[in-house]
Amino acid sequence: MIARTPSPPYFAVIFTSIKRPNDIGYSEMAKHMEELVVKQPGYMGHESARDGLGITVSYWESLEAIAAWKALSDHKTAQKLGKESWYSNYAVRICRVEKAYVFP
Amino acid sequence: MIARTPSPPYFAVIFTSIKRPNDIGYSEMAKHMEELVVKQPGYMGHESARDGLGITVSYWESLEAIAAWKALSDHKTAQKLGKESWYSNYAVRICRVEKAYVFP
Repeated sequence: MIARTPSPPYFAVIFTSIKRPNDIGYSEMAKHMEELVVKQPGYMGHESARDGLGITVSYWESLEAIAAWKALSDHKTAQKLGKESWYSNYAVRICRVEKAYVFP
Repeated sequence: MIARTPSPPYFAVIFTSIKRPNDIGYSEMAKHMEELVVKQPGYMGHESARDGLGITVSYWESLEAIAAWKALSDHKTAQKLGKESWYSNYAVRICRVEKAYVFP
């Protein structure tokens, strides 16, 4: 689903990843992260797709809200397991959204 | 593939879309746009995934480079056909990338 976001400015985290073939525990953790992120202060929505490459974009009210999500204990565990077990490569890009258009 | 981008700041266009069931001509146009975009001045790479929701993120040296790509004649034709024929919904978000981390 396309996230409904307000007029800019707001912030986005673009998380692009390639998974390893063996990803035991990944889908349970992804589900747990989905449940957690929607409760985070300043969270405004996210969009996700994977076909080989995975792209998840989450939208936030402020850089402080993004930093708090990054520092959350369960999320830090997920980040550690991501590096150790699930991802062969990833990139995280933190952005300020300056303009937006929607159709229709 | 994860785009290799330099240290921030640089710019990103997040294009999120949902297609209509009938998308005649879409894949040919998508291929043509892929061939064109890589030749654009200021283009730095892109990432794409679709599973129901489609997400394409392209990376750029400047807002001017993004504006020139948006205004390119063949791209304008693609945008028009996108609205008329291929997409039920989309969002375009233009961002300034402020921080980035890569793994490994």
